[in-house]
Amino acid sequence: MLQAALRSGTAARRSVFEVFARRLPQGRRYGVVAGTGRFIEAVADFRFDPAELAFLAATGVVDDTTAGYLEGYRFTGDVWGYAEGDCYFPESPILRVEGTFAEAVILETLALSIFNHDCAIAAAASRMVHAAGDRPLIEMGSRRTHEDAAVAAARAAYLCGFATTSNLEAGRTFGVPTAGTAAHAFTLLHDDERTAFAAQLAAFGQDTTLLVDTYDVTAAVALAIELAPDLRAVRIDSGDLRLVAEDVRKQLDALGAPGTRIVVTGDLDEYAIAALAVAPVDGYGVGTSLVTGSGAPTASLVYKLVAREDASGVLAPVAKASPGKPSRGGRKHAYRRFTGEVASAEVVSAAEEHSAGAGDRPLQVPLIRAGEPVGREPLTAARDRHLRSLNELPAAARHLSKGDPALPTVLS
Amino acid sequence: MLQAALRSGTAARRSVFEVFARRLPQGRRYGVVAGTGRFIEAVADFRFDPAELAFLAATGVVDDTTAGYLEGYRFTGDVWGYAEGDCYFPESPILRVEGTFAEAVILETLALSIFNHDCAIAAAASRMVHAAGDRPLIEMGSRRTHEDAAVAAARAAYLCGFATTSNLEAGRTFGVPTAGTAAHAFTLLHDDERTAFAAQLAAFGQDTTLLVDTYDVTAAVALAIELAPDLRAVRIDSGDLRLVAEDVRKQLDALGAPGTRIVVTGDLDEYAIAALAVAPVDGYGVGTSLVTGSGAPTASLVYKLVAREDASGVLAPVAKASPGKPSRGGRKHAYRRFTGEVASAEVVSAAEEHSAGAGDRPLQVPLIRAGEPVGREPLTAARDRHLRSLNELPAAARHLSKGDPALPTVLS
Repeated sequence: MLQAALRSGTAARRSVFEVFARRLPQGRRYGVVAGTGRFIEAVADFRFDPAELAFLAATGVVDDTTAGYLEGYRFTGDVWGYAEGDCYFPESPILRVEGTFAEAVILETLALSIFNHDCAIAAAASRMVHAAGDRPLIEMGSRRTHEDAAVAAARAAYLCGFATTSNLEAGRTFGVPTAGTAAHAFTLLHDDERTAFAAQLAAFGQDTTLLVDTYDVTAAVALAIELAPDLRAVRIDSGDLRLVAEDVRKQLDALGAPGTRIVVTGDLDEYAIAALAVAPVDGYGVGTSLVTGSGAPTASLVYKLVAREDASGVLAPVAKASPGKPSRGGRKHAYRRFTGEVASAEVVSAAEEHSAGAGDRPLQVPLIRAGEPVGREPLTAARDRHLRSLNELPAAARHLSKGDPALPTVLS
Repeated sequence: MLQAALRSGTAARRSVFEVFARRLPQGRRYGVVAGTGRFIEAVADFRFDPAELAFLAATGVVDDTTAGYLEGYRFTGDVWGYAEGDCYFPESPILRVEGTFAEAVILETLALSIFNHDCAIAAAASRMVHAAGDRPLIEMGSRRTHEDAAVAAARAAYLCGFATTSNLEAGRTFGVPTAGTAAHAFTLLHDDERTAFAAQLAAFGQDTTLLVDTYDVTAAVALAIELAPDLRAVRIDSGDLRLVAEDVRKQLDALGAPGTRIVVTGDLDEYAIAALAVAPVDGYGVGTSLVTGSGAPTASLVYKLVAREDASGVLAPVAKASPGKPSRGGRKHAYRRFTGEVASAEVVSAAEEHSAGAGDRPLQVPLIRAGEPVGREPLTAARDRHLRSLNELPAAARHLSKGDPALPTVLS
């Protein structure tokens, strides 16, 4: 596309691309914008290095003119988008990229990869956090997804309210608080469970979590408290977690360890977490279902050209007419409409003359201006924003059951 | 785990970890080993750099002794595994890592991330390739998954028989053949479809694929052949693909362009591909369902300690007893048993004294020996192997419907 546009002279036309989802994953009531911070940094760093250019030239993927363009590539346009952590709905323009066609079309895969992944994880994480109530969630899904996706997944989970992650690289890169855990391998490494527990306690003291289901849970809990009367926590990773947690709680209390907490893990998703609300559980570790988006591993966001300069230099809306996949032309503005304290509609307008109604909250903020990042913020700011945004939605948004989007999208 | 084991003196115990799946994703008849080549390189490069060590020290995640161990980390053990591209079944020991506990336990997340991701994509890709028969498949799912996962997904798809990928980085890094496509944005960029098609043809000649569903398919096909009587292909991305392809084929033939091919795209999965077998389609582009594993986005592989030196220095099998998640102790050997030309069982033995039966095919090959990669091979070798491995399985393996694993796993 770039090569043909450079040749035909259309590559320099001012263009507007938007990222949006035609629909939410089946039964989901809201989406969560995630990846914005990663996208800002990725665009700032987006270059074609000599090895990449050499590959493109050697394979004939691009001609010399195109290679020359890519060699000097640097995004110089503007990006607006929903603030990270905010909720979104069908047709919400969560990102808007403006620049020449050439510089903006090049960012399609980058933008969609980041947002499709991070939004998918965030949507699942948000539901899990709500299901868990006041109990903390540990993200521990790195093993079940691509090694680099794992780092982004840990970031998206924290954004939506997870307390910690086991992914240390997410701690280093994004400042996500980290937490460790001992696996069954540690117990099995030692000649018996007593030796294993003693080794862990010798290294970390009683402020640690002992895994108690390698052999016999009751025997392990008794041993744990014998060795560490003030043990911070035990972890249960198998069996009927509700029943086992009840038994372990009784046993801990009877042993005089009412302060020792119970953490459960093992193929938990938002439904299993909700079902454990009645159990004496103090925290959850979540892996597979989180990093795979709990049934919706991609957010199905698309990147569509909605306006571009025509031959006379006027920015004109454009849209395709493909059956079932139409697009709506024009640069969009978006507002969240409120009835009292509660959001009541997502208003998306393609009108150039537009204005927010009384109490409408404008949803788009500047992220990159003339190629320079202007939307950087601490991840904790996005984390706080997500909680506020979710709490603004009607109560039905927070139901785990399948349903329609919590807000209607009003296209004006 | 590492810190406590270093302190207790067990870190140096010779240990054996195995990677296997307790079960295949629901209804799947076989798994595909993918990621082996990536894992070999990742282990060879696995180091902790100063910035990572500084983070671990500053946050108190590790003590000085552990930081010192990590600073000098280099895997010096042995890795055996199924050859990449081979099929696998429940309990197949697709990877075996032997070394000290310390050096092997560190690799858990790396191994599982690579294999869980790549095997999930490969299993879906293999079914799609079989469903497509002789028609080529283009991998074009980069936009729907994490930006780095996308590169690995393109590799896994090619391994299983996809013809090409739109991911240029997969071409550069792994030698996967690449193919491009024009999006609706390219047509919309121009003042009309005629200008857009002419621009693409001016850049690439008639050996290109024109996207014909931006406005009206019939008008676009007529325009395409008017401008390029020998056009290589048209692409249809929306509508009832079977009906539209039939109409377009008739139109192309009537226009005297019987050699112009039809490529279809748009939320295809293995079932949609199979349903299009009767349609006049010459190739498929597949995105979302491929990179998300077509309903099974992770392979659910686990990394378990199965043997380790005991206090007396003897390598002893170990296993946990967790309800529903037991492990089987002992270093495993695996063979594929045949009845005539057709595979009939997956034989997995933990016996130290073991031998292949007549005609049994040993499944494990050396990948890393004393820390040195010995299992490198061209990706095409794995690609050829996958086709052979799949063709060895009973016919039921290649059914798309949900079913049991195509081979029983015999544990001896």
